[in-house]
Amino acid sequence: VTTSELASLVCSTNLSSIPQPAIEEAKNSLLNYMGVAIGASRHAMIDMLLDVTHEWGRNQEAQVLGRPERVDIYTASMANGMSAHIFDYDDTLLDTVLHPSAPVFPALMAYAEKHEVSGRDMLAAFVLGVEVSQRIGQVVYPSSYDKGWHMTGHVGQFGAAVSVGCLMGLSTEQMQHALGIAATQPVGLREMFGTYTKPFHPGRASANGLLAALLAQKGFTSSTQSLEALRGFLRVTSEATDFSRLTSEWGANWEIMKNSYKPFPCGIVIHPAIDAAVNLHKKGVSADNVERIEIEVNPLVLELTGKKTPRDGLEAKFSVFHCVAAGLLDGWVGLVQFEDSRVTAEDVVEMRSRVHATIDTGIAEDQVRVKAYEKCGKVHELFIEHAIGSIENPMTKEQLVQKFVGATQGILDRAHQENLIEETWNLDKAASLKNLVSICAASE
Amino acid sequence: VTTSELASLVCSTNLSSIPQPAIEEAKNSLLNYMGVAIGASRHAMIDMLLDVTHEWGRNQEAQVLGRPERVDIYTASMANGMSAHIFDYDDTLLDTVLHPSAPVFPALMAYAEKHEVSGRDMLAAFVLGVEVSQRIGQVVYPSSYDKGWHMTGHVGQFGAAVSVGCLMGLSTEQMQHALGIAATQPVGLREMFGTYTKPFHPGRASANGLLAALLAQKGFTSSTQSLEALRGFLRVTSEATDFSRLTSEWGANWEIMKNSYKPFPCGIVIHPAIDAAVNLHKKGVSADNVERIEIEVNPLVLELTGKKTPRDGLEAKFSVFHCVAAGLLDGWVGLVQFEDSRVTAEDVVEMRSRVHATIDTGIAEDQVRVKAYEKCGKVHELFIEHAIGSIENPMTKEQLVQKFVGATQGILDRAHQENLIEETWNLDKAASLKNLVSICAASE
Repeated sequence: VTTSELASLVCSTNLSSIPQPAIEEAKNSLLNYMGVAIGASRHAMIDMLLDVTHEWGRNQEAQVLGRPERVDIYTASMANGMSAHIFDYDDTLLDTVLHPSAPVFPALMAYAEKHEVSGRDMLAAFVLGVEVSQRIGQVVYPSSYDKGWHMTGHVGQFGAAVSVGCLMGLSTEQMQHALGIAATQPVGLREMFGTYTKPFHPGRASANGLLAALLAQKGFTSSTQSLEALRGFLRVTSEATDFSRLTSEWGANWEIMKNSYKPFPCGIVIHPAIDAAVNLHKKGVSADNVERIEIEVNPLVLELTGKKTPRDGLEAKFSVFHCVAAGLLDGWVGLVQFEDSRVTAEDVVEMRSRVHATIDTGIAEDQVRVKAYEKCGKVHELFIEHAIGSIENPMTKEQLVQKFVGATQGILDRAHQENLIEETWNLDKAASLKNLVSICAASE
Repeated sequence: VTTSELASLVCSTNLSSIPQPAIEEAKNSLLNYMGVAIGASRHAMIDMLLDVTHEWGRNQEAQVLGRPERVDIYTASMANGMSAHIFDYDDTLLDTVLHPSAPVFPALMAYAEKHEVSGRDMLAAFVLGVEVSQRIGQVVYPSSYDKGWHMTGHVGQFGAAVSVGCLMGLSTEQMQHALGIAATQPVGLREMFGTYTKPFHPGRASANGLLAALLAQKGFTSSTQSLEALRGFLRVTSEATDFSRLTSEWGANWEIMKNSYKPFPCGIVIHPAIDAAVNLHKKGVSADNVERIEIEVNPLVLELTGKKTPRDGLEAKFSVFHCVAAGLLDGWVGLVQFEDSRVTAEDVVEMRSRVHATIDTGIAEDQVRVKAYEKCGKVHELFIEHAIGSIENPMTKEQLVQKFVGATQGILDRAHQENLIEETWNLDKAASLKNLVSICAASE
């Protein structure tokens, strides 16, 4: 009776009982989600999706983040879920590789926007939605992932269904049906990585979860033991046999508290080096005074990202040399630093030539040692023990703001960026999402 | 390079080259599809789906079969795919248990209606769509079915994607992308059998396939080896290792030629007895003159359907006594004969009491032996060697018409039934689906 126990726990958890630290983390997740979604919102694949759905003649009750369009809540779920994952820059629950926000927030926010839900209820429902998708993820991981399922599409729809279902006030039985309708629609093969279809997964998962909740609310039926049954979700898509995590220690901790945010939009292996470069920038090391930068890195870094002279943004993601140069010059490495024009800019190319790397097996994957030699003879030495964004060194609210500003540059103007940050930090006191959402539209 | 070979075969097959016998079988499939979909179109689950989608404010470019509503092509695909499978009365490719029409026709017809495709091209695209989903089904069956996938949702989306993609004239590469977007959205756990979520599967598969084709047409990318890759569809969802059937003997035969149609909306095990009862009715055996009916059946019949006094339509599906009585009285057993009011009607109850059954291990599952004793002393003896609807004794066009009329009774009036049958038989000569579709709307 596992699905029924889980549904019962969810339905008996009052939204107002979600503790404030979890709500705060939900706000961090929200700012990060909106930043990466807005940042990618002009990608060609969003144009394609909206071209298709435009012909279906949808109404205009939910905002497409970072764009002028308003669409129906189902289409908004798909579009926003996609853009949140386009740059692989969204949040991660590291023990399952689940990106929790991209499948949950789009459906939840679209529903909350339409039904004028309070900010705090929306955030609390997010905490519950993430809790459920992550717990299901913990049961099936790593076996379903190893088999070839993309975790975020594979279990994300449960989070969308549950979070929307909570706002609807579904009964336990309806919630079981919603979980069942979600269970029958797992999305996402890892084979799709590297194509538009990868970000399609959380978009599709979000819309699938939304539809599951909407149908369940109308009385649509499904299996009431969709997770644990012999031919249910867990056994069909994974080799898992221990399902206890679905319900164990419910409410003792909230999984959202372990959420992590990627500071930089590239492989995690370069993050320590970028962290060091950003620190050097803060110390005043600049193009004018630096002569040579030496980095000692874990062997994996040069194996994966040893490209000396990247020619465009995509290649630059595989060049620790570019990342260190750009981080030092610009004080951050965001989406802008991976634009083709920045990768080939004279100052970046010049600085890149001064970066020299050696490997050291004694350096851990989240570490780096850097020496910056100034022309005057001064040497800055820096050892990053845990790069920012790692569990041991999570991003601060200030860093999340910095990431948000970088990600939304060119789409939101400065005033809108500031307003949106402010609205997010105060969302748990807002009567609705109205203000927040109105600023998410394109303003530049 | 299997996906690419398959896409290449599909794209190099000219719609006009599909031979006439396959087109004829496609018309049989179409009549059967429309009958069962129209027959179930007023079910509560279709109301629920349309209630949900109505709020999204769709336009009115495609017909919901059997109802007054017109909706966008995506919603039409979901609704019609669901209604086609609600009564488990649709067609079957017996070697994979794939119900080929329910996921393919809804997307294909909605697209064809909107884009004014000719009747013959639509039918030819159906043949190709079924070909592809069935071939993929042949590769994964029985391993994915045994694991717990519902074949019709599991592989049906490929047929929808390919058939619509053919009408669009997708390039081979676009077709690979469409197959990839379809591959990443398998639908349907067998655990859902017995709930509304079962017919949801072909509806969802149809819409998923349609979306895949629409996105691919816009330039959306996916894996180009979505079927055979290490983490692709075939290996993730089945234990299959031999993929040769995907492309072997392409064009030598068309799988649609093996399509089978269920004459009666109940478990196949009672079909021989109903067949016999219908034959007795034709011979003039009636309530007025019959005294006693003895049937000798395969043991499975009484094990599964031995209910002596069914109280409602659902129980009547498990009563060979009811089925024989109703078949003898009404000359057919369709949806009407499983309505509660017919099950409890005096003449049926009375006739049921005259039916007596014995088991005989020498009678095969598709056989029955019947003796009808008339009051005058005359005895009619009948042996059904292969029940209608079996591979050896397929339904004739006349019987398909009879099924269609029974299924659509109370939703289409007699004139509309006749027109729709006529339009179907002549569809390969029609310039568009316009006439056909206009008659599919509710007329009673």
